[in-house]
Amino acid sequence: MPRKMTIAEKILAAHSHQSEVRPGELIQVDVDVALGNDITAPIAIKIIEDSGIDKVFDAEKIALVADHFTPNKDIKSAEQVRMVREFSKRFGITHFYEGGEVGVEHCLLPEKGIVLPGDVVIGADSHTCTYGALGAFATGVGSTDLAATMITGKTWFKVPESIKFIYKGELRPWVTGKDLILYTIGDIGVDGALYMAMEFTGPVIEALGMADRFTMSNMAIEAGGKAGLVNPDETTLAYVKDRARREYKVYTSDEGAEYTKVIEYDCSKIEPQVAFPHLPENTKGISEVGSVPIDQVVIGSCTNGRIEDLRIAAKVIKGRKVAKGIRLIVLPATPEIYSMALEEGLIKIFLEAGAIIGPPTCGPCLGGHMGILAKGERALATTNRNFVGRMGHPESEVYLANPAIAAASAVLGRIGSPDEL
Amino acid sequence: MPRKMTIAEKILAAHSHQSEVRPGELIQVDVDVALGNDITAPIAIKIIEDSGIDKVFDAEKIALVADHFTPNKDIKSAEQVRMVREFSKRFGITHFYEGGEVGVEHCLLPEKGIVLPGDVVIGADSHTCTYGALGAFATGVGSTDLAATMITGKTWFKVPESIKFIYKGELRPWVTGKDLILYTIGDIGVDGALYMAMEFTGPVIEALGMADRFTMSNMAIEAGGKAGLVNPDETTLAYVKDRARREYKVYTSDEGAEYTKVIEYDCSKIEPQVAFPHLPENTKGISEVGSVPIDQVVIGSCTNGRIEDLRIAAKVIKGRKVAKGIRLIVLPATPEIYSMALEEGLIKIFLEAGAIIGPPTCGPCLGGHMGILAKGERALATTNRNFVGRMGHPESEVYLANPAIAAASAVLGRIGSPDEL
Repeated sequence: MPRKMTIAEKILAAHSHQSEVRPGELIQVDVDVALGNDITAPIAIKIIEDSGIDKVFDAEKIALVADHFTPNKDIKSAEQVRMVREFSKRFGITHFYEGGEVGVEHCLLPEKGIVLPGDVVIGADSHTCTYGALGAFATGVGSTDLAATMITGKTWFKVPESIKFIYKGELRPWVTGKDLILYTIGDIGVDGALYMAMEFTGPVIEALGMADRFTMSNMAIEAGGKAGLVNPDETTLAYVKDRARREYKVYTSDEGAEYTKVIEYDCSKIEPQVAFPHLPENTKGISEVGSVPIDQVVIGSCTNGRIEDLRIAAKVIKGRKVAKGIRLIVLPATPEIYSMALEEGLIKIFLEAGAIIGPPTCGPCLGGHMGILAKGERALATTNRNFVGRMGHPESEVYLANPAIAAASAVLGRIGSPDEL
Repeated sequence: MPRKMTIAEKILAAHSHQSEVRPGELIQVDVDVALGNDITAPIAIKIIEDSGIDKVFDAEKIALVADHFTPNKDIKSAEQVRMVREFSKRFGITHFYEGGEVGVEHCLLPEKGIVLPGDVVIGADSHTCTYGALGAFATGVGSTDLAATMITGKTWFKVPESIKFIYKGELRPWVTGKDLILYTIGDIGVDGALYMAMEFTGPVIEALGMADRFTMSNMAIEAGGKAGLVNPDETTLAYVKDRARREYKVYTSDEGAEYTKVIEYDCSKIEPQVAFPHLPENTKGISEVGSVPIDQVVIGSCTNGRIEDLRIAAKVIKGRKVAKGIRLIVLPATPEIYSMALEEGLIKIFLEAGAIIGPPTCGPCLGGHMGILAKGERALATTNRNFVGRMGHPESEVYLANPAIAAASAVLGRIGSPDEL
């Protein structure tokens, strides 16, 4: 009888051409998609060019997205993008995105059907784990590993242990996937799932839309997770249906698969979460936040820059005004999302409220550009990390929350809930 | 009998409390508006703070606009804005703009009615001459002079000689104020009006709307002009009518006033102009440009980021696509212009064409951020300067043109005219 396996193990077994794999085993796997951006790809490209190698394993399986410091913030970033552009041209890379076609990589790749269920995806970006929401095994690597994969089409992994999270109960008002994952990280800590495959299950996850699932998988790395997976279901397949341009295979965890740990949450007890500086695990329920004045609010990023996020924020802010002295920066994550937001009247709502609408970019999330904090400034952001100096000055602060809390806080001028408006 | 005077002389006489002034005379004048931005104001502020002075001459007559490197591109720019914000708060500066309220200063100040006909305006920004289009005497100064004026409300000038430009004849298709001023600079050279008041007159100017007049006055400095003025008329007064919140006085040149030079142009002979690198005087008619491939197009800035400019560009690009590999960056100059463009469907047209829409900022015009060029890259821009390295790498190139040429070039992938589409 074959070994009962988790979704992560099944994908890794299939991609290493074995009937089964076990946690701890070192395996070599075929990679379906290898991703780099304008920060990380140039390092990989330099390695490839310095080695004199003149082809990549598969020009259709490499995605290079100039999303971090674009529109080019300075000469250095312009040179980085030029390097990626010239490499893409020379090697015929199918999925090179820049200019008006660029979106935040982890929103763009699923949207374009470049990553699909059952894939092994590596990316030289820590939030590559986002694609786990599709039932793919996706994880961040360094640029050196990216270079090796771009050449060989393979990489190696130690098969991770899996940890199962079961979410039950009814969601309270304004609670989203962002709150579930922040709550989870608050519970287990930023190393609570170190090198493990986090598997998000239960009736609450089954009822979540893809946007919320992406948000949860996206932040798996913030608990140290190697990957953050959701078993594909009808919601997944509906999302993938008109986007997939190639075959893919759906894997789901076996009944009786082994987990290092199983953790169950009663979601009816979880209120909207806010992660205080300087770690995503420093979470509090919104009712416990107290009065925290802010200077800036950012709605966007690979975590919460999707159309569903903008809809929630717009619903909260509609007919209201950003508080005097607060900068609200809204960054739709892709051109498609921007167009939808325009069509649905969301851009108008944000503009009328006094927001700054930026183009798709990672921008301030990683302290790149387009909203950097000065000394002593405080931001509430729908992004994924609130490390020291993440959005600017080492003495600035970042608080993490969902788009509803973000929009409400922009109006209140302090961290707060839509219920306070 | 009183001396016949030009509009510039009349304004300067009134502001120096004299019945007349003559070119070459050194005078002290009262300043109606003193302007600084996030680059130049901090230097002035430091001078004021270091001197221990604890008040400004008039908190309602100082405008501080954080438009250059915002949304903050890095920690340094965030600190600059913080400095301006804290100063504005401490001194009760009425016209401090940041965040979602910010627009490109030279578009924002007329739009808000902060600068008015007959004013003397100094700004620590070379394109302060823009307000000459309203019939104001407006000129750029250094941050030290700004500091002195912020304290005393006064500054000194040598009364400039005046040079009169008369524009006659029928405008050819796609010819705008931008082309008239580029043609003029091409004719007289970048020092052709050194320290002179350029006065734009004639039936063509009388028929121009305010946007085109602002564009012309804006670029007076590119011919070395101390100011670039248009005599107020009904068009001016209609523009000012609902914006002015204080008294103002209209001055116009006397018949028989003395000009150092009078230059007349037959506009029916002027085609759309392109200024080649690396000086605004290197102009050619569009038919003489030849094949110049480009990498980036920028539509925006204090020169051509107004709603009229966006309308022209949208008209050209509607239903078309930005050429593969070209980055088209559209930067509405103020939130009001952005909202109008949204309402009129222009943002949708640009997005559908594949453009990047950025928030109001000077951005790439001065190589600040939001579209910086790599080595060897070439941009066509509706901006005002094409000096070496102006938009990025010292080996990049900038070509200047009007919004119609810019939009057409984005579609063509090379510099060209809407007539070629």
